[in-house]
Amino acid sequence: MQPDNFAPGEPQPATGAEIKEFTAFAEELADAARAVILPYFRAETAIAVENKLQGGFDPVTVADRAAEQAMRDLIARKFPKHGIIGEEFPEKKSRNGFSWVLDPIDGTRAFISGLPTWGVLIGLVQDGRPLIGVVDQPYIGERFIGFPGGATFKRGAEERPLSIRACGQLRDAVVSTTDPHLFEGKEAQAFDQVRVAAKLTRFGYDCYAYAMLAGGHIDLVIESGLKQHDVAALIPVVEGAGGVFSNWRGGPAFMGGQVIAAGDDRIHAQALVALKRAAS
Amino acid sequence: MQPDNFAPGEPQPATGAEIKEFTAFAEELADAARAVILPYFRAETAIAVENKLQGGFDPVTVADRAAEQAMRDLIARKFPKHGIIGEEFPEKKSRNGFSWVLDPIDGTRAFISGLPTWGVLIGLVQDGRPLIGVVDQPYIGERFIGFPGGATFKRGAEERPLSIRACGQLRDAVVSTTDPHLFEGKEAQAFDQVRVAAKLTRFGYDCYAYAMLAGGHIDLVIESGLKQHDVAALIPVVEGAGGVFSNWRGGPAFMGGQVIAAGDDRIHAQALVALKRAAS
Repeated sequence: MQPDNFAPGEPQPATGAEIKEFTAFAEELADAARAVILPYFRAETAIAVENKLQGGFDPVTVADRAAEQAMRDLIARKFPKHGIIGEEFPEKKSRNGFSWVLDPIDGTRAFISGLPTWGVLIGLVQDGRPLIGVVDQPYIGERFIGFPGGATFKRGAEERPLSIRACGQLRDAVVSTTDPHLFEGKEAQAFDQVRVAAKLTRFGYDCYAYAMLAGGHIDLVIESGLKQHDVAALIPVVEGAGGVFSNWRGGPAFMGGQVIAAGDDRIHAQALVALKRAAS
Repeated sequence: MQPDNFAPGEPQPATGAEIKEFTAFAEELADAARAVILPYFRAETAIAVENKLQGGFDPVTVADRAAEQAMRDLIARKFPKHGIIGEEFPEKKSRNGFSWVLDPIDGTRAFISGLPTWGVLIGLVQDGRPLIGVVDQPYIGERFIGFPGGATFKRGAEERPLSIRACGQLRDAVVSTTDPHLFEGKEAQAFDQVRVAAKLTRFGYDCYAYAMLAGGHIDLVIESGLKQHDVAALIPVVEGAGGVFSNWRGGPAFMGGQVIAAGDDRIHAQALVALKRAAS
């Protein structure tokens, strides 16, 4: 499936050597973000109190901005022609089709609640199309890496391929979404239709749910209102592990919006029957 | 506050030396459970396939039973007079007032979804009253330990006291519950009243939410339908960190049921206004 904004033939697809280089660099970015963010995790109270006299202070915002700045500096030095799309600073336009899409803390509500299910999202897109993605959980020390044709899990010395699991029927599926109260009206009805048909539903995991899908533990993730910086890193991880990532009509979801990720094509198709009715 | 089944004066309260000994032993139990359970976590597919020929196989149940058995053996050897209350095997009556209350995998739905927010719960009760509690998360390597007068966090070489945070107003509170669909009728209405008044709600963390409350990251946890083996370990951790743990009327919740844990007395009181109406 080709996205609308990807004209086949030009530009040149990334070579194998480029993919290897970019994937290694994406991990360098994740290392840098880890070092910046970790001191702020579960340290909110102490830091907030320390900084009270200096006026309003939001530790998750400080960590978010500092991590994005650190990654921007590394990119500018190593790949000055690459674009950068982040939440905290203005977009830097690409001069060669490649852009890094950064979300230093996806799952800020988990972060401020001390829960280790937030993640650092680092995506590389080529002319808008996701190519490489890293989901990093600094506190647990887990890293989920997706690239054309594969996906890898790393934790400390552990390293193994990520692979979705087969699941032919919705009634056997573990489904996840971030917050049941994020859906409204038709969306809520459509999601509920999938939820009651499934074996089990888990709430509240943000990017971590997609990582578990890539690892073969969760079968479906259904969300709405996502942004490009939410999905750019997730798509290569899910697809590299053998899964499907689309919008609620089954088309590309490179820019976010209403998204569904599935391990198995068959339950992707089953869930779309319900979701299509609420597709925007 | 004295529980109904605790007659002051007899039996003798545990001495400081006993508490120290029992707390260290609770950690030995947690170590044993870790070793048994970890190989099963995120290994469901492989193990299930391997065992398919031998008939029905549920890895979480196998891990649960094996861990409980390992802990039972250690208790029987070290403290033969102590009782044992677990989910998987019949109760062993206490001959001296002390009983261990075990839930090897609290949060089985998280466990089977690959999410590291389940925990091993180990409680020591004296004549039904929770005395010492351990919440252990083997995959992350975190341990939350509660005892009379204090609570401790351990992870690897890291060790520090656990302490709740102040939170005077419900509108500033982070609230958690395991599943919004577990409440029905009046309970759902009462919980919703608290939820909409709070700053933020997180779903899906089982025992881990109470550990985060003890660590000062979450302010309120509200649940219903809990059992003794769900709460016996949690109460010493929450209370040892300076928090409150009660039923929805404000009374003791040593046996589970409708429970509320709060970091700060003030929001405990505020939440009870709503919850009391749905108290059973």
